[in-house]
Parts: sequence; C-alpha cells; structure tokens
Amino acid sequence: MSYASRKLAEEKVFKDPVHRYIHIRDQIIWDLIGTKEFQRLRRIKQLGTTYLVFHGAEHSRFNHSLGVYEIVRRIIDDTFKGRPEWDESERIVVLCAALLHDLGHGPFSHAFEKVFGTDHEQFTQAILTGETEVNAVLRKAGEDFPQKVADVIAKTYPDKLVVSLISSQIDADRMDYLQRDAYFTGVSYGHFDMERILRVMRPREDQVVFKYSGMHAVEDYIMSRYQMYWQVYFHPVSRSAEVILTKILQRAKELNGTGYQFKREPDHFKSFFCHEETLEDYIALDESIMFTYFQEWMKEEDFILADLCDRFVNRKLFQYINFDPAKEYRKLSELEQLFKKAGINPEYYLVVDSSSDLPYDFYRPGEEEERLPIHLLMPNNDLRELSRSSDVVDAISGKRRTDHKLYFPEDVLTEDGKKKTLKKQILSVLRGE
Amino acid sequence: MSYASRKLAEEKVFKDPVHRYIHIRDQIIWDLIGTKEFQRLRRIKQLGTTYLVFHGAEHSRFNHSLGVYEIVRRIIDDTFKGRPEWDESERIVVLCAALLHDLGHGPFSHAFEKVFGTDHEQFTQAILTGETEVNAVLRKAGEDFPQKVADVIAKTYPDKLVVSLISSQIDADRMDYLQRDAYFTGVSYGHFDMERILRVMRPREDQVVFKYSGMHAVEDYIMSRYQMYWQVYFHPVSRSAEVILTKILQRAKELNGTGYQFKREPDHFKSFFCHEETLEDYIALDESIMFTYFQEWMKEEDFILADLCDRFVNRKLFQYINFDPAKEYRKLSELEQLFKKAGINPEYYLVVDSSSDLPYDFYRPGEEEERLPIHLLMPNNDLRELSRSSDVVDAISGKRRTDHKLYFPEDVLTEDGKKKTLKKQILSVLRGE
Amino acid sequence: MSYASRKLAEEKVFKDPVHRYIHIRDQIIWDLIGTKEFQRLRRIKQLGTTYLVFHGAEHSRFNHSLGVYEIVRRIIDDTFKGRPEWDESERIVVLCAALLHDLGHGPFSHAFEKVFGTDHEQFTQAILTGETEVNAVLRKAGEDFPQKVADVIAKTYPDKLVVSLISSQIDADRMDYLQRDAYFTGVSYGHFDMERILRVMRPREDQVVFKYSGMHAVEDYIMSRYQMYWQVYFHPVSRSAEVILTKILQRAKELNGTGYQFKREPDHFKSFFCHEETLEDYIALDESIMFTYFQEWMKEEDFILADLCDRFVNRKLFQYINFDPAKEYRKLSELEQLFKKAGINPEYYLVVDSSSDLPYDFYRPGEEEERLPIHLLMPNNDLRELSRSSDVVDAISGKRRTDHKLYFPEDVLTEDGKKKTLKKQILSVLRGE
Amino acid sequence: MSYASRKLAEEKVFKDPVHRYIHIRDQIIWDLIGTKEFQRLRRIKQLGTTYLVFHGAEHSRFNHSLGVYEIVRRIIDDTFKGRPEWDESERIVVLCAALLHDLGHGPFSHAFEKVFGTDHEQFTQAILTGETEVNAVLRKAGEDFPQKVADVIAKTYPDKLVVSLISSQIDADRMDYLQRDAYFTGVSYGHFDMERILRVMRPREDQVVFKYSGMHAVEDYIMSRYQMYWQVYFHPVSRSAEVILTKILQRAKELNGTGYQFKREPDHFKSFFCHEETLEDYIALDESIMFTYFQEWMKEEDFILADLCDRFVNRKLFQYINFDPAKEYRKLSELEQLFKKAGINPEYYLVVDSSSDLPYDFYRPGEEEERLPIHLLMPNNDLRELSRSSDVVDAISGKRRTDHKLYFPEDVLTEDGKKKTLKKQILSVLRGE
Repeated sequence: MSYASRKLAEEKVFKDPVHRYIHIRDQIIWDLIGTKEFQRLRRIKQLGTTYLVFHGAEHSRFNHSLGVYEIVRRIIDDTFKGRPEWDESERIVVLCAALLHDLGHGPFSHAFEKVFGTDHEQFTQAILTGETEVNAVLRKAGEDFPQKVADVIAKTYPDKLVVSLISSQIDADRMDYLQRDAYFTGVSYGHFDMERILRVMRPREDQVVFKYSGMHAVEDYIMSRYQMYWQVYFHPVSRSAEVILTKILQRAKELNGTGYQFKREPDHFKSFFCHEETLEDYIALDESIMFTYFQEWMKEEDFILADLCDRFVNRKLFQYINFDPAKEYRKLSELEQLFKKAGINPEYYLVVDSSSDLPYDFYRPGEEEERLPIHLLMPNNDLRELSRSSDVVDAISGKRRTDHKLYFPEDVLTEDGKKKTLKKQILSVLRGE
Repeated sequence: MSYASRKLAEEKVFKDPVHRYIHIRDQIIWDLIGTKEFQRLRRIKQLGTTYLVFHGAEHSRFNHSLGVYEIVRRIIDDTFKGRPEWDESERIVVLCAALLHDLGHGPFSHAFEKVFGTDHEQFTQAILTGETEVNAVLRKAGEDFPQKVADVIAKTYPDKLVVSLISSQIDADRMDYLQRDAYFTGVSYGHFDMERILRVMRPREDQVVFKYSGMHAVEDYIMSRYQMYWQVYFHPVSRSAEVILTKILQRAKELNGTGYQFKREPDHFKSFFCHEETLEDYIALDESIMFTYFQEWMKEEDFILADLCDRFVNRKLFQYINFDPAKEYRKLSELEQLFKKAGINPEYYLVVDSSSDLPYDFYRPGEEEERLPIHLLMPNNDLRELSRSSDVVDAISGKRRTDHKLYFPEDVLTEDGKKKTLKKQILSVLRGE
Repeated sequence: MSYASRKLAEEKVFKDPVHRYIHIRDQIIWDLIGTKEFQRLRRIKQLGTTYLVFHGAEHSRFNHSLGVYEIVRRIIDDTFKGRPEWDESERIVVLCAALLHDLGHGPFSHAFEKVFGTDHEQFTQAILTGETEVNAVLRKAGEDFPQKVADVIAKTYPDKLVVSLISSQIDADRMDYLQRDAYFTGVSYGHFDMERILRVMRPREDQVVFKYSGMHAVEDYIMSRYQMYWQVYFHPVSRSAEVILTKILQRAKELNGTGYQFKREPDHFKSFFCHEETLEDYIALDESIMFTYFQEWMKEEDFILADLCDRFVNRKLFQYINFDPAKEYRKLSELEQLFKKAGINPEYYLVVDSSSDLPYDFYRPGEEEERLPIHLLMPNNDLRELSRSSDVVDAISGKRRTDHKLYFPEDVLTEDGKKKTLKKQILSVLRGE
Repeated sequence: MSYASRKLAEEKVFKDPVHRYIHIRDQIIWDLIGTKEFQRLRRIKQLGTTYLVFHGAEHSRFNHSLGVYEIVRRIIDDTFKGRPEWDESERIVVLCAALLHDLGHGPFSHAFEKVFGTDHEQFTQAILTGETEVNAVLRKAGEDFPQKVADVIAKTYPDKLVVSLISSQIDADRMDYLQRDAYFTGVSYGHFDMERILRVMRPREDQVVFKYSGMHAVEDYIMSRYQMYWQVYFHPVSRSAEVILTKILQRAKELNGTGYQFKREPDHFKSFFCHEETLEDYIALDESIMFTYFQEWMKEEDFILADLCDRFVNRKLFQYINFDPAKEYRKLSELEQLFKKAGINPEYYLVVDSSSDLPYDFYRPGEEEERLPIHLLMPNNDLRELSRSSDVVDAISGKRRTDHKLYFPEDVLTEDGKKKTLKKQILSVLRGE
C-alpha cells in the first residue's frame, strides 16, 4: 500500500477542548505532526498579543492547526464520503493542506511582517517545498506531492472545491479559529452550530455549497465572525501591545543601521534587517526567542528600545483615543510638534493604528480582494448567493468597517517632572479639550 | 482612607473562561497585578510539560493566580461577609495572599528544583519581602504588611482560618486549578459544584468548615482531584518530557563543572550551578529564556546535551515501562550495564521516575506531612471529619498511591545500525521477554 | 418589620440549569411560589407545541418565571443597588411583577386565545387582584400592593424604569426565555453575554439604558432573538401542531353549538364556548386537562374531532407548503373546491398560518405597536438609539418579516383508496406542478 | 431489500441537548418512533416527582429513549463495526431494543407499581408482542422479530453481548440517563467522559469489556452514578411527593373497595383495583390522566383523598426526619398512637420510606440480584474485574447503602387550633426532644 494511503495500526486521538477529540488515522498525518516545523507552532500564539487583554488566550497555532485538520476530516469522512461530486483521491492532499496551512507563521506575524516585509504565506510555501522535515514526509507520498499541498494552500490548485475547504468565506480555518478563540478567551461570541453547517455542506464542481435549510446556521456563523472581529481581534488594548511590538522591531532595525553597539546583539534578526533572511533563519524564530531579546534589551542604553521592551514585557501599554486620519491630520501634525518639543519621539510614541474588516462580501469580479461568495443550494438545486436570502447578511455585506486609533504613553504625559505645562497642553489636544 | 482599603473608582473586570469574570474592586489588587513580578507569571505555564500531551494546556500561572484570588474574594465577600466568626479586617491580607501565593514559581519548577535545590516557596517569600515592585505596593498598606501576606502563604500566620482559605485540603488554590486545568486540557474530570461548596463554607475559629448538606459536593471535589492527578498531572508522557528536561539541566551543570566550552554560555544558570543565585537571577528566568537556551544548545558539540535539547524542543520523548524499583533493582542494574556496553549513558538515558499522591488524609498529628482534615458542620453544630461520613472518601483516605516508570529512548534502541544485537537484548530485558 | 421587607431566616436556593441557582431572600417571594396559582404554571409548557419538534423543549412556565425573577433580582441587587437613579423602595414590587408576569397564561395560550377570544394578560390581572392565594399573599404587603404589581405588568405603572425591567425590547423576560429555550431545545442560538449586559445596564428616569461599551453584547442579544424566532419559535412543524390544536378547539365549539352529543362532555370548556368563563374556570385549566380531553375525544363519533385529536396526541401532523395569501388566493379557492369534492372539509384540513416578527424597532410614536427603542449611554452621557450605532441592528430594524404556510394532511392525499385521481390532482396543485 | 435493512432516503436527525443530534438512518426506527405507544412516552416524565425539587427535571421518557438508541447506535456503528467479535446481523434488533426498552413504563411507575402490583417490564413485553402499532412495525421485519426484541430487553436473548449493551452495570441506558438527568436538573454531577468510554468498549463473546486504558473514565462513571443516586434520585423531598402519590392511589383503591361514591369515578383505575387490567387499560394511562383525576379529586368529600391530592397538585409536601426502622419501631408505634388520638390517620400521614442503592457489585453467582461485573481488557488480553484495579470502586463495591426517612405533615402539627398540646407532644417525639 502506498505511503499516502497507509493507515495507522490503531487510530490516535488527541484530547481537544473545542472538538472533544482530534482523530488521526493516516500515517502521513501522524508523521507530519511529529516534524520539528510543525512542533514549532507550539511556540507561537494563535492570537499574538491578545492574551494581554483576554488572559485565557494563550493557545498556540499548534492547537488551531489540529483543529482545522479535524474539521476538514469530518467534512470529507462524514459528509462528503460517497457523494459523486467528491473525488476521494483528493482526501490526503486536503488533509495535509488543512494541517499545514499556517506553517509559515512566525512569532507575532503581523508586527513582524510590517517591519521586515516578510510574508508568512511565502514561508509556508518554502517550508513545504524546501529542505525541511515536513517536505521529507510529504515527498514519501510522491515527488510532486509537496507542491500539490502547497498549491491547495496557495489557492492555485486546479480543483477549486478542494481549495474552498481551506480558503473561502466559510472554511475550516475560520470555523476552527472562531470557536477556539472564543473558548480560550471565554467570550460568549464565536458560537455557532458547526455540527449543522457540516451536515448541510455539499460538494459542487468548484466550491462547497450549503443546503438552504441550513441558512440560519450560516447566518449565525457570519455574525459570530463579525462579533469576534470587533470584540476580540481588533480590541484596542491588544492593538496597543502590537503597536509597541512593531516599534521595538523598528527601533532595533534603526539602531542596527546606525551602528549602535547592542549589549545583546540582534543576531537572530540581522538577516531580516537587510532582507537576506534564509528559510533556516525564519524557522529559528519563535516567541521564546523574541521574548528573550526583549528582556535583555530592557537593559540597553538606548532609552527608546529599553523603554519599549519594558512596556511590552511588563504590560505598560499605550493609551489611545479615537482618531480620524482623514480629517484630523492637522491635529496629528500639531501633536507631533508638541511631542518633539517635549522630548518624546513621535515616531515611536505617537502612533496611528487602523483595523478594518469586511465581514462578508458578495462576488465582485475583477475587484481587489475578489472573494467567492457563499452559495446556498436551494430545494430546486439552484444556487443562490447568501446575501440575497439573508437580510442580516445583506446588511453587512460588502461594507468595510474601519477603526482608527491614536496611541500614546499617557503615563509619561501625566507623570510629574519637567515640561509639565507642555505635557498638559498635549493632553488637552489629545482629549479635544 | 488608607491605601489598604482604597476602592477603585469603577470596578475592573477580566474575562475569565473558568469563572466568567474576575472582579477587581481594590486599588491594591489592581496595583499588584501591574507589577513586573506578577506579569512574569504570564511566561510560566501552569502545567509545565503537560501541554506536550494535552495540547490545550498552554495556560499560564497568571491565569491561575487571578482565579484563586477570585474564589477567595467570592468566599469572603459573598459567603463570610457579616458572619460573626469572620474578621473583616483580614480581607485585604487574604486577597493579596491568594493573588500572590504562586509568585515564586519559576519555569518548569519541578525539574528546576530537583537539579538546583531551589525552593519556589522561599522565593515567594523573598519576592514579597525583598526589593521588588510587589513589595513596594504591599508596603503602601503598612510596613509590616508584606510580612503578613508572606506569613499567610507560609502558613505561619496566627489566624488559621485565614491560612486555611489558601492552604488546606480544600482551598481556593486547589478549587481553581482543578477546574482550570480541566477546562484547558478539555478532560471531563475536574468538574465539581464549586457554587455549592462556596455556599456551604462556614468560618470557624481556626479553619473553614462545610455544612453537612454540602457533603456530596465536597466528596465530588475529592474525587475530581483524585482523577485529575492520575489522568492529567501524572500522565506518563508528560513525565517523560519532564525527565528529559531534568536531564538537560543536569547535563548543563555537569558540563559547566568539567570546564566544557559552551557555544552559548549558560549565563542565566551559572549562579544556580554554584548555589549562589540572587533573587534577581531567579526573577530573570522564565520559559522563554529556557527555551532559547534549549534551542541554541541543540547545536552544542556535546552529544548528550544537544540530543536531549532536540528531544525536548521537538518532542521526541522517551518511552517507558512500568517498573518497581523495590523489586526490580537487579533488572535496573543489568540494564545499566547493557546501556553502557551499547554506548548509551544510563545516567541520562535510563531514568526511573516516581509519582505519588495522597488524595485525602485524615488528621495524623505529629506525622510527616501532617494535614488538617476537612470538617463537616453537622446540623447540631458539631464538627465531624469528612471520611467518617463519606464511604468514598474513607476508601481513599490516607492511602498513598505511587506509580513508578522506567524511561528510555526506544527510538535509539530500534534504529538500524551498529550494536543491533545488543540493542535487541536491551529491548528484550525492558519488555520482560 | 413589614411583611414586604421581611427576609427569610436563611436564603433558599433552587438549582436552575440556566442561571445555576435562583436565590430567594424575601419572605413574600417564597410565599408566592407556594401558591396554587403559581404552582399551576408547572403544568403549562413554556413553548406549547414546540416539544413535538425539539423534544427537549418540555420545560414549563414555572421554570421561566423563576428565571425572570432571578434576572431582575440580579439587576437590582447587583447592578442598580446604591445608584442614585434607582429607587430601592421599588425593589419588592418589581420582583413580584417579574415572578408573576406570566401567571395568566393558560395551556397552549396561542391556540386557545384564537378560538375563545380570551386574553392571558387580562387573566394575569384578574389573578393578581381577584380572590386567589396569590392575591392573599400580595395583600399582606399592603392593600394596594396587588394593584401595583398588576400595573407594573400592565405597563401602566408610573415608574417607567420599573416597567422597562419587565417589558421592553431587552427585558428580563426575553433574556430568560431566549437562553432557557435554547438550553432545553439544545440549539446553539440563544446564547449571548447576559453577564455583560447586566453589568452595563444603568437606571435612567424612565428606562434602563446600556453603556456604550456593552453595545456588541446587546447587538448579539438582538441577533439571538432573531435567530430563535425563525429557528425555534416559528418552526413550521410546531406550527402544524398548533394549527391542529386550534382546529380541535374550533371543532369542539362548533359541535357543542350544533347540539352534538359528546361521549365525554366538554365540561371544562362550556363556559368558554359562550364567553362566560369565570376566573375559576380559567385557573382550572392546564395541559393535563386538555390532553385528557383530547385522548377521550379520539373515541368520539364525529370523525373530524376524533381524527384531529388522534393527530395531535399521536403526532400525525399536517404537511405544508410555502404560500402567499396575497397572490395565491385563487389557488386557495381552487384547492378548497377540490377538497370539498374529495370529501375533506377544508375548514379543518386546509389551513393558512402566518407567523411574523419585528426583531427590533426604533421609536415610531403614535404608530400601532409603538415600542420604546433601546438606548445606549454614550461616554459623554448622551443617549443614542441602538440602531444608529449598530449596522447589524439597523439592517433588521423596523423590518417585519412574515412567513405564510398552507397546511394540509398529506397522508390522506397519498393513501390508497377511492377518489385517487382527485387526490392526485390536489397534490399537483399543492406542489405547483 | 428486506424491511429490517431498509435505509431512509435521507438521514433524519433530532436536535438533542445531551447528544447534540440523534441520527436515524433505518426505516424501522423511524416507523417505531411514529407509533402511538412510543409517542405516549412524551406524556410520562423520566424522573417522576423529581421536578418538584429540581424544577428543570421535566423531561420525558421519550427524550431518554431516543438517547439510549443513539448511544447504542454509536457503539455499534462507530466502535464495534468491522470487529470480528461483533455480529453485524444483530444491529437492528439491538437498536430496536434500545429504543423500546422503557416502553412499558407508566406514569409515576414506582408509586403505581407499589399500590397496584403491576410490573412495567411485563408491560414492555406485552406491548412488543401484543396487538399494538409497535408490534405491527416490528413484525414487518419478521414474524419472530418482536419476540427477539422482547428477549433482548428481558435479558433472555442468547447473545449476551447484545443484552449487555442495554442491561449491565455500564450500559447505554445508564449512560444516557445519568447525563440527561444531570443536564435537565442542572446539577454538576452526572458528567463523565462518555466519548472515551465509547472508544474503549470492545465486544467479547458474552459481554462488552473496556480497554484498561479507559479505566479512569469507567471509574468516573461509577462515581457519577453514585452521586446522582444520593443527590438527585433519592432526594428526600421528591420522595415526599412520591409518598403522597402512593397514598393517593392507595386511598382511592380503599374508598372504591368500601363503596364510596366518587364525584369523579376512577374509571381509568377500576380494572387495576381488582387486578384485571388489560394492556389497553395500561396504555391509556399517562400523567395527564393522573393529574386530571388528582385535580378533580381535590373536590371529593373524603377528606384524606382531597387533602392528599391538594398536597400533590399544589406541592404542599410532607416533612421528614431520619428514622431507623430497625431500632426505632417503638417510637413509630408511639407516634401512631398519638396520631390516632390527634385524629390524623397514620396509615396516610405517617409514612416510612426507604431508599437503597448498590453502586457497583462484583460477581456473586447464585445470590439474589446477581449482577455481571464490569471487566477491563488488560494489555495482555486478559480480563480483570473492575474493582480489582480501582481503589475507589473497590471501596463502594458490594456495599448497599440505605436511607430511611419518616414522613409527616408538619403543617398540620404546627397549625393553630384544637389538640394543640397533643400536636406539640407529637412534634417533640418526632424531633427526639
């Protein structure tokens, strides 16, 4: 029997708080979990800085990756199995893609990519096809197998039905993270009837569709997603931590460029500073490494780097106000001047952050961010786009919602000491008094 | 108003997945949470290596500390308030003690203490009374206040009722961790009716007692504890990871003693090697630091150190067999000889680990590990020791249960290569064939 | 101490699966629960015929009434207590009103009221102020106290803040039933963060308002309500059972009018047939009585009454099609003719049922069904109507959604026997073939 | 294809709050659910009078029957399928037996059987094999099929493995009711890891055994059962209601024997009074009928019957004291005399009730109540009786625990009026003063 279809002698299970159990029946899945690139996901938090607001959110991407795998497994083994539209020979490639779709995520990806211009999706591709333990396992299933898995994740795979299981407006990835993040944060949003959604999924030529009878469950999923974005993912306090993190990395890069003598040299980052990082450099990074630098950099002579590291490690975050960059650019400019006068570098201490989400979109061919809509399978076998049947979804469909905040260190502005008048003035401007 | 009794202008809440919300009403509690020593608990996992078996168990001691605080707060604010036996002036000291009781835990405490002979309880005392941010906050409530909090945690505080809230066979500490660890691992053990237990708690002169009508809830708690120990805390696979961790630290210490030239010097550990660590050295440690060393040591020339680190970081754990050290010492001795012949250092690769628990104990004055039993408050106001009323508790009362396992690297023994016959022989002995 | 403010010697608690515990501290609440009019609510299901679709939905109005009481108790004892806008002297009247607000519900109220023209709200008033055990208890708190409680429930009480706790677009009544009905049916809708909503409630002169920071929790509640209506409350199969129930009562009334000789005389219903029912007649009714009649009427000689009772008792329900009465009146008329030809009385066997809900409404003074909108309390202390801040709520605001179905006995139309061609023709018309 | 193996065109599902969904794939199961004998279970509460203590416990035997079916379906379709020890041809018979095992339960079975000497197990057999809709469906699967199903339920079926799925110390029946009753009452007992138990079940020749690795889950199940018995099933207040119910039936029977002229004749009970009931008489009974009688009998002239009915319907229950019939028979005798003097009939108003449970038993061949023990399947394929491996189970194994209470109407004894001294004396004796 070929390696790709080899079953374990006995099914393995992982106890999972969200899906009760994760079931592993295939040798290749078991082997992939054991690779060092996959184990590395244990050292990267699923929600980055969110744990600084919701203290339960300490779960890793390892957790989530198993969850996505399990959902896809249930879809194809329970719901799709035996249906003529489903090609059983795609089973292993999609299970591998589900398990490995986040493999290229680094520590605090968002901030990291902003400063260093890296792209976790490219690294996922590189890990799958480069010289890695993951690649060695995948190759046992066929020389072209690593590339097939990579194509599913990159959405370039020819079978679009397979792609849509992992990447669509209602895919296994989203269904897992909404429930998982809700579970670990403890918020009451994020719940929807996944059991029902799984039952009403039907394979079609180029996408998964949903029986009309399950429309309300799909509607509920869209609303859960919407709530999770604004309640959890875009929480202004965790964005404050992310702003600081971004500024730490930016400062380190800047200092390195100016020839600053670090007490603890940024060895792990140097190739990133000049954009010459290798795959090996990238894989070597995880949150442990990052935190170790931040802790050591708290003792650096450069005040800004040391201060920002102290803020991040010891959770002394920036405060924020609502801020409309389009209308209030003069205010920003005034504040920058005042900050400079007060001896506070605005580049690092006065930061605009914008978060934006499009909860659901119908199909707008050719437009940027073109997204395949969710289709309902009507009783007469026609397909109908979701927002045409659902008032609630229609209401938020295609409407991008954006939130801008201006972050600053309130503690510095309110502390006693010199430049008190100037600081008072800054606070007045900030508070719009 | 004194600092100790100062209330926040508005109550703060933390969303907690176990207790729904953690309520903070006192300024001092809020300030303590903000200290760097308390924030450090975010970087130390509550269950050490357990996440390598139960992947959800990635929660930190920060989480748990808030939970213990919340349970104590509910006991004194909801159940005890207004009862003549309860001295309201003890409220703040016990809340602080609840919050800070685990402050001295380091990363992977168990393994760390085994190798370096440190004691997390002593470090808790040191953090409370030494030159720390926590101490600075506590001192604002009175010069002797830090020592009072330390005494409650050390169980030397004169008011034994106060002590018993934090440390007894049914205290807030245990009630939180059982539920929390069950939640994050996802196991179905660990649930008991805490609401009911809180409602039937009554303050007595030197202890908390439990109304007889709540006996079954207490019984259920004891059983939950028993199940959690054997299902989760003593899981043989997480003990395998802990064995490896212990051996890493032991190897690093040994190498340092022999003058081995590290590529990455064990700077953070050197004072521990010679037992001259300061409080500052201790606080500087967390799991990030440890993992950073382990990852860098994977590249050391010393095979044993590099191999053990690789095993820990990439989860290539030891296998195990049941083993009775009292009866099978000859087998162990034989195996040690065979390991040496095969070129596998038994000091690091053949390890006996024993776990042991006493689920509940009645009162045995003067004996080692003397423990105060749980008392029921009978309808006639008499007290009666729990195991006298409960068959189930009586059954496990005073009975220590111990489990011994022998750990070894099965992968090495089954891999192809030289010394194959010798390895086969070793496996035969291990498997008792 | 007056009866109204008399406390129980020891708090009583009821174990409740939704709110964990119901806490009773006031003598008057305890006494009210013990009255026969309140105990009667145990014999009336909260969701009428819904248990025929969701088998878990067997819970009674007794359950729900305790739940509404508990929510109001928590609002006023935990959130409002001590706030200047809250008049503590209203506490007992609102707790009584919460507990008793559904007292006048009879068995299968909806169907019953449709046929007999009764009004459960009037009966609630009558029970509160008439010669009942409930009235006797309430009067102990003051001669005018029963009327005050009645006024709160009737929304005519002068203090509109008090009224809004029980009756508004987000009141304790709705918050309990959404959660409770979700729990007992087992659906995943109906969950929202009530803890948070309770925490952000603030008393204002004439209404409860909600701090802006809790807007998303309120939004989520509105969506839960919307989902529960369409997924549970308006489920077409439970409406089928209700259609049959209505037709049973209608048939019994009609037969009684024609002098038909019942084997089991409808003694309990006779006064209702001629609209001369007394309060005592009404209270005597419950679902046990109804079911007993239905079972005995299965043996009546009148085919229609016997058949409908058999259908209801043994769950042989009508099938349905979507139907637009405004456009398809000709089809209906044609079907009626065909039914008559086939010897099937369309009055009882061809029934249009319409369900309609307005998920949320902003304020439209003077219009029918005028409803007070939900107001958010902005950081600057202004009030702002919810739909102005929430896209999602705005989307469904003021939009009535209606669903029409046409019910018929498919089993009769597909069974073998005479008039087969005619029945086939009927099925063709029904199916729009 | 034969009827027994006919599949539904599309799987049907019921939403179930305990098991999420009940899956129906077989035509015969669907048809059985639609019979009137099965639908009748909707009108019989699973926990009889328990809802008077735990108000959530209003769920019916219909609920539970579906749950037992679902558990058995999962065992054989998920765990047993394909194992050589499992005979797939037994599938349908065991599914039918699981669904129908409680078919013969009447309203408030326990009290009913005590007074009338009926036996619900005999009625189950009679319904399966008599002239019923259930029998008609079963016969379509073969003339001897009804008897085969009956034999499984009666434990006389030759294949003991099949029997043990429904009736053993750890069967689908118990696993469902523990979880279901816990869910509806809301107690925190009754939870155990059924998922794990299902996974470690293995078919053996004459019984289901459990892999040793699942021992702790089985242990936890035994403890849950133990807790549910003492916390819920034997709750003294619900036993009070049951005592009253028993006495109502006893009084009605006695009055009927003496020629008493009822206002509402006990037509439904008459054949039971003289032990000449037919199957039809039995099936005609349900809780609606019972409640209808109780409500009408509240107006009877016989004080005792009217009073007891009032107590039951309006929840005016008896109080109780602990009572040891073996030691305190003199006290009972003294009390009986005093009751008579006080004009209170002790036959109806002074009642000893005993509840008794054997949480788990090892094998005692030949003894009364012989029970097959639970066997663990050891790694070496040996079987080992559970209590030999589990301290906790061993502790409660074979130990019957019994609780005796003496019930009486405290309200009567404390009310003002004549015979006050005598009543005070009675209370003194009762309270052991």
